[in-house]
Amino acid sequence: MDSLQPVLAVLARVLMGFSVAFLVPLLWSLWAGEGGHARVWAAGFGATLVAGWGLGWLLRHHSREMQPRDGFLLVTLVWVALPACAAVPLMWTVPGIEWADAYFEAMSALTATGATALAGLDRLPLSVNIWRCFLQFIGGLGIILLVVAVLPLLGLGGMQLYRAETPGPLKDDKLTPRIAETARGLWTVYFALSALCLVSYRAAGMGWPDAFMYMCTTMGLGGFSPHDASFAQFDSPVIEAVAIVFMTLAGVSFLRYFAVWRGRSTRVLVRDPEVQAYAFVLLASVFAISFVLHAHGVYDSFAASLRAAAFHVVSLGTTTGYAATDYAAWPPFAPVLMIFLGCFASCAGSTGGGIKMVRMVLLLKQAQRELVRIIHPRVVNPVTLGGATVPATVLAAVLAFMLIYGASIIGLTLVMLLSGLDLVTAFSAVIVCVNNIGPGLGLVGPVSNFGVLNDFQLWVLSFAMLLGRLELLSVLVLFTARFWRK
Amino acid sequence: MDSLQPVLAVLARVLMGFSVAFLVPLLWSLWAGEGGHARVWAAGFGATLVAGWGLGWLLRHHSREMQPRDGFLLVTLVWVALPACAAVPLMWTVPGIEWADAYFEAMSALTATGATALAGLDRLPLSVNIWRCFLQFIGGLGIILLVVAVLPLLGLGGMQLYRAETPGPLKDDKLTPRIAETARGLWTVYFALSALCLVSYRAAGMGWPDAFMYMCTTMGLGGFSPHDASFAQFDSPVIEAVAIVFMTLAGVSFLRYFAVWRGRSTRVLVRDPEVQAYAFVLLASVFAISFVLHAHGVYDSFAASLRAAAFHVVSLGTTTGYAATDYAAWPPFAPVLMIFLGCFASCAGSTGGGIKMVRMVLLLKQAQRELVRIIHPRVVNPVTLGGATVPATVLAAVLAFMLIYGASIIGLTLVMLLSGLDLVTAFSAVIVCVNNIGPGLGLVGPVSNFGVLNDFQLWVLSFAMLLGRLELLSVLVLFTARFWRK
Ligand SMILES: [K+]
Ligand SMILES: [K+]
Repeated sequence: MDSLQPVLAVLARVLMGFSVAFLVPLLWSLWAGEGGHARVWAAGFGATLVAGWGLGWLLRHHSREMQPRDGFLLVTLVWVALPACAAVPLMWTVPGIEWADAYFEAMSALTATGATALAGLDRLPLSVNIWRCFLQFIGGLGIILLVVAVLPLLGLGGMQLYRAETPGPLKDDKLTPRIAETARGLWTVYFALSALCLVSYRAAGMGWPDAFMYMCTTMGLGGFSPHDASFAQFDSPVIEAVAIVFMTLAGVSFLRYFAVWRGRSTRVLVRDPEVQAYAFVLLASVFAISFVLHAHGVYDSFAASLRAAAFHVVSLGTTTGYAATDYAAWPPFAPVLMIFLGCFASCAGSTGGGIKMVRMVLLLKQAQRELVRIIHPRVVNPVTLGGATVPATVLAAVLAFMLIYGASIIGLTLVMLLSGLDLVTAFSAVIVCVNNIGPGLGLVGPVSNFGVLNDFQLWVLSFAMLLGRLELLSVLVLFTARFWRK
Repeated sequence: MDSLQPVLAVLARVLMGFSVAFLVPLLWSLWAGEGGHARVWAAGFGATLVAGWGLGWLLRHHSREMQPRDGFLLVTLVWVALPACAAVPLMWTVPGIEWADAYFEAMSALTATGATALAGLDRLPLSVNIWRCFLQFIGGLGIILLVVAVLPLLGLGGMQLYRAETPGPLKDDKLTPRIAETARGLWTVYFALSALCLVSYRAAGMGWPDAFMYMCTTMGLGGFSPHDASFAQFDSPVIEAVAIVFMTLAGVSFLRYFAVWRGRSTRVLVRDPEVQAYAFVLLASVFAISFVLHAHGVYDSFAASLRAAAFHVVSLGTTTGYAATDYAAWPPFAPVLMIFLGCFASCAGSTGGGIKMVRMVLLLKQAQRELVRIIHPRVVNPVTLGGATVPATVLAAVLAFMLIYGASIIGLTLVMLLSGLDLVTAFSAVIVCVNNIGPGLGLVGPVSNFGVLNDFQLWVLSFAMLLGRLELLSVLVLFTARFWRK
């Protein structure tokens, strides 16, 4: 227990910080005149603040400093504890909800997965939808901090690359010597883009509440919607265009924007191999799916096919998960390709989930190198990224990541099958949860919701979302005996 | 064209050797009194012999020696040309067959995949079924030569490990200094085990023709059957037990048996980490699936569940693909786990397909090492196998193999989806073809056959079988511009 003290002390401070988040739905409920619900948010604020303060007070005499290793325990504890705090108000405000659904919903929000267990979103109080969506905004903030500032320090799954090799502000030790400063810079970019997104949604025709909620779930690449119909609610090409632009922007590492801003040059952005690959696969997929939709006569015109393809490819490819139509009813090539894109297209350091494009670029380069090596066994051709040689340890870390990624998906799919689901539902539910995409196929398709699953299945998928969001290794390391040894 | 000469010269000799194979169905057709068909096999023998001899005669003045690089072209050409030769007699003997089906069937036979495009197997002439099954025996011989003797020399996908690191006869240069000698030793083991298998099937109650055909498809881990009902034809626990024993034996590297025989000790077999992992996953899966079958009341007794689980787990896990019942109708956990096993359980140097257990062992060790490294960043813990350190280049090669494996499966699945199949059929068909397993799920399940697919889909899957059998890289390297450069 003694060794948990420094971790719990930081957790206490995180809880106190998180309590402020309850003020957002509180203010909206007052604005909307939902007097009864305001008390719930006020209670949530008070309880979380007191819990954090109390935990901190209990641990006020702790002596040991945080070690890097404690970071794994901390991030997992944070992403397990905050959904619990966030789920409590749902129990009081959503009619007939059970704890497994409420926790799933809160985990889905804070991991920016966007898989909802709730039906009848339009009938929920405004402040509840505000809460669901705002949690995704916080999740986005958290993941930027995690992926850009914490994971590289822990040297995780090839992400040590982001500490040493990547051109960008992290490389320059003087520019941002400490995690806090880096985080502040990135959050500034995140808030600036969010403000732009909010205003754009408003200008495109949304009311302020919708504009605020969609801004939250766009920037966090979360994909929650306050409407059951999601974007079909508006049926507006302009609103969809705004969503496409900001989803695409949020799928790029915020480090790049920070670097552009500091350097007053877009060179670091447009020359980045990860960004180039990201733009290429999204564009190529939009065209491929447009042609398939057109060839199958799903829409009357090619323009309509292009509009639908662009929106859904970007939505699923960036792991947002918005739907404007039941794309699961499209020729199966389209939804499968889009969900597959979601597994890897987002850039590391964005708010997206999945394998991350930088790892895929490394894998492709390594495969290419291997094809050269078997033709010319004596040629020395190290894998490079942005001009720098990628160390063998990074490739080995990516290999480990990929195995654990594949094993997690297959293992969790088998568990879901054992629980009685069909193959398409089980496999797609695990894929969309581990990659933090959102809606799946089969029983959990875009016009359904995860509320059809039983409690056991929801708990498994809550774990899958946590696992994916924290890049797998940082959670799984806690299950090794070695981690807990002195 | 000049540079193709040495490759074609070897291909000519391979064709001449392969022509002898036609004598096997010829003899059986004479034995069975199928006079009309005997002429077909005689013609096949003559035509293949003349084609090989003619090609050799044309190239009798070629000067350049084979380079290692030519090996890739050779193995691909062999596995493209032999199915073409083998398919021709099917056109004359199977009523109503089309070329795409005949080539698919022959490719499925020679790659020991065992996915059949034919219905009404029981009504086919005996010599046709003999031919289908005997091709799988030849395919097994070929793959042992390929994986054990050729691919390591080409340094492919981590298989260079088998040249230097593995304890076994290949390590001792004096014991088997040349490919031909190694191959001879391994083929001796293969023939000896086959003879034992033949006698066992006969003793278990099969007639000689069935015993011969099932011996061929068991030892080659091919899975073709001369009966539509496959093993349900016999409904005999003893016959199933014989199949289980010899499938399990054929799923282990023949190098190990050779080493056991030379060393007069089973130590090299039972201490081999690959063999241990192979035995473990098969046993664990048999018990897991027995319990699931029993829990779902699929069979009346636990013994019946155990019998069905043992037969089908070994059949699919070793990539044989025999069926004794419609296991696709079991709770989906069971068929999915069994097909998943088929993707990796077989040992390298066996006649099985898939990723191979040795690669999976390396991946697991690398993942374990990574989990240690992120806890103790300064600990040096190289990946070892059988006591020797695995070089980083081998791990990098495995990484490339895994990416290309994954990309091939996803890419081919998308192509199959585009052609109009449903997700389960498309995905499972690609999985079972790339891994040379046999029957899939959905439209191509164990009680159906691949004849339901259209020509385009059969050609794609023929390519998938080729790709998987030749360990992907050796085929794909031919599609690189660099390969064809001087
Ligand atoms: K999402
Ligand atoms: K097979």
